[in-house]
Amino acid sequence: MALIVQKFGGTSVADPERIRNVARRVVETQRAGNRVAVVVSAMAGETDALVALARELGGDAPDPREYDALVSTGEQKTIALLAMAIQEHGLPAQSFTGMQMGMRTDRSHTRARIERVEATRIRETLDEGGVAVLAGFQGIDEQGNVTTLGRGGSDTSAVAVAAALGADVCEIYTDVDGVFTTDPNLVAAARKLERVSYDEMLEMASLGAKVLQIRSVLFAKRYGVPLHVRSSFHEGEGTWVVAEEDVMERPVVSGVTYNRDEAKIRVCGVKDQPGVAAKLFTPLSEAGVVVDMIVQNLGHDGSTDMTFTVPRHDYARALSQAQEIAAEIGADQVEGDGEIAKVSIVGLGMKDHAGVATRMFQTLAEEGINIQLISTSEIKVSVVIEEKYAELAVRALHAAFVEDGAAEPVAES
Amino acid sequence: MALIVQKFGGTSVADPERIRNVARRVVETQRAGNRVAVVVSAMAGETDALVALARELGGDAPDPREYDALVSTGEQKTIALLAMAIQEHGLPAQSFTGMQMGMRTDRSHTRARIERVEATRIRETLDEGGVAVLAGFQGIDEQGNVTTLGRGGSDTSAVAVAAALGADVCEIYTDVDGVFTTDPNLVAAARKLERVSYDEMLEMASLGAKVLQIRSVLFAKRYGVPLHVRSSFHEGEGTWVVAEEDVMERPVVSGVTYNRDEAKIRVCGVKDQPGVAAKLFTPLSEAGVVVDMIVQNLGHDGSTDMTFTVPRHDYARALSQAQEIAAEIGADQVEGDGEIAKVSIVGLGMKDHAGVATRMFQTLAEEGINIQLISTSEIKVSVVIEEKYAELAVRALHAAFVEDGAAEPVAES
Repeated sequence: MALIVQKFGGTSVADPERIRNVARRVVETQRAGNRVAVVVSAMAGETDALVALARELGGDAPDPREYDALVSTGEQKTIALLAMAIQEHGLPAQSFTGMQMGMRTDRSHTRARIERVEATRIRETLDEGGVAVLAGFQGIDEQGNVTTLGRGGSDTSAVAVAAALGADVCEIYTDVDGVFTTDPNLVAAARKLERVSYDEMLEMASLGAKVLQIRSVLFAKRYGVPLHVRSSFHEGEGTWVVAEEDVMERPVVSGVTYNRDEAKIRVCGVKDQPGVAAKLFTPLSEAGVVVDMIVQNLGHDGSTDMTFTVPRHDYARALSQAQEIAAEIGADQVEGDGEIAKVSIVGLGMKDHAGVATRMFQTLAEEGINIQLISTSEIKVSVVIEEKYAELAVRALHAAFVEDGAAEPVAES
Repeated sequence: MALIVQKFGGTSVADPERIRNVARRVVETQRAGNRVAVVVSAMAGETDALVALARELGGDAPDPREYDALVSTGEQKTIALLAMAIQEHGLPAQSFTGMQMGMRTDRSHTRARIERVEATRIRETLDEGGVAVLAGFQGIDEQGNVTTLGRGGSDTSAVAVAAALGADVCEIYTDVDGVFTTDPNLVAAARKLERVSYDEMLEMASLGAKVLQIRSVLFAKRYGVPLHVRSSFHEGEGTWVVAEEDVMERPVVSGVTYNRDEAKIRVCGVKDQPGVAAKLFTPLSEAGVVVDMIVQNLGHDGSTDMTFTVPRHDYARALSQAQEIAAEIGADQVEGDGEIAKVSIVGLGMKDHAGVATRMFQTLAEEGINIQLISTSEIKVSVVIEEKYAELAVRALHAAFVEDGAAEPVAES
């Protein structure tokens, strides 16, 4: 008898009919001989409506404590409705808020970190043969104030509960069939991955394959919780996200991802001396701008160019801030470019293979695509190119690395 | 510095603009040198929408625990929004759910009874100069399950909090200016009462003047909490509901009320023997029918007629049930009448005056109105008449007892 944590997002519980579908799925799992705890998000649209109300009454910066108290009601609605729908099948079910399930977090409202999950009442419900229906996204601090984990936090809730219960698997139901080698809307030959490692998933998630929240993958990796990403609309296996040692085949490249939500800023002619990078990036970080890639090139004259990317919605203010700082540190000039794309290849197998990056650059060169920035990690190579070439680059790289017979030409290290 | 508990119902917080109005009112009260805790209901329409969802997913009898978990989210939404709106005035405010404020109830979901209010965090907030914004209608049982107090329970929440805090007054804001001598829509000369006693208010509330929940008045009486019923739209005093000894003027009749939501059932020719009343009313009570008036007349032949009234929406099933029982106990026949009205006069002064009932009957006789049933208590006389005479009766009684100079002809006891 397996213990399974299932997580359904807002789209899967968007209306009563879909909630009934989720209930059916939960009941089938339980009747197949498993114990089930199910974590749900707010009905699609609900959180946005609550956020709009918060803006209307609390201004641009509503009080974080009250904001959390408000938006957490969305999930509370769903859990009660889902518990009722499960009970209609004659199966006992009980709903639990963050407080009731003992989801203890720190005091950082709107982006709280989970400290522990007490899970006493969840266990009692499961032991009595019932289904525990849990509110995702929310917890409480030590004073009993409601906190939220930030957008997409329901994935993290599910993984934390799975870890606390020692569940056999945490199933994440989404509107796609699993994790694909690249965006199937872009590349017809994209195929579903059977298994990927936590690290590959992390690289893919952070690079724009928005199937799973990064934090939930980190959590799953830390506690060794196997994730199963699968469709809430179809039956059949999805993609398992597991420890590296449990990934049998280790393709050189597991996936090709792209991201068009960034912009590039280049500070030219910076005097190459200690502390310059800190001077540039500290104010940006203090302003809450999350800098992604950072590349530094030492120029021929002893000065250096510093190029970095930021989320596109932060581009304007990051650019003006960079200009101010450039003036202070005596840089020559600042250039910006809002029309870029980041394209990456990710794969555990890169650890064992040399020449992968070179082959990537060749593939792009053959298509006449110029590379503006390069950044590499152990299991990933990312390049920044002109935005208009994004689709072309993804297709070419997918054909070269992922499609049948594509991985052969890479030399063994 | 007074400690004031204010309660605003669903109409007063129906949309963001009205929530801002409530915030303004709260802030004015606090800035006038008072400490304020404010209890609110769900935004008008919200609870109905949640109940509709519960019906859709939980069927005709949704699980009471989940039903409470669901509908309590309505108030949680309002408290967070109101706290934000108060903070916009630069005043600290914190919202508290039933759980957070320590509103402890028994385990009777959907109609829980308050056992105690811990109020620790409410007191802390007030001591720090902040406004405590409290969810009405909800509490928790000893296991931490969310309970609700039943429709209109927010009045009771407010009074319970006022009692726990030892508040100077519990202000109930409504869409009327206070408690009137009769329905102002019916009688132009109706006037607002300055003060009424708890007992008068109880008689008036249960007789159809739907300004205050009966339970909240009982609670206020038990704990000696002065209530102030006033308009959420206008300034100015409303009606104070206080202990009998604090009512200075004691008019013979404080108010004239009417109720058209009842129906009459008469069981004729019942053998007058012990146990007959129990045989008749036990099954009705078990079926959840709340019987209001009961009148028994001993007939000339040793048999008796038993007449009683029930809520009109229970009329059909109560009638068929009465017919079954009549057959069992060998009664002659059962008559029913769905077109009746109950008209009552209520007043503390009746205790000290004789002849009030007689004068009421004379007044109705002068208008040619036949009386079908009579029932009296220490401070009230109720009659059942044909429904079509309801307005006429109310106007005549109001003119005779309440309007200027009307009370004079009553003889002292």
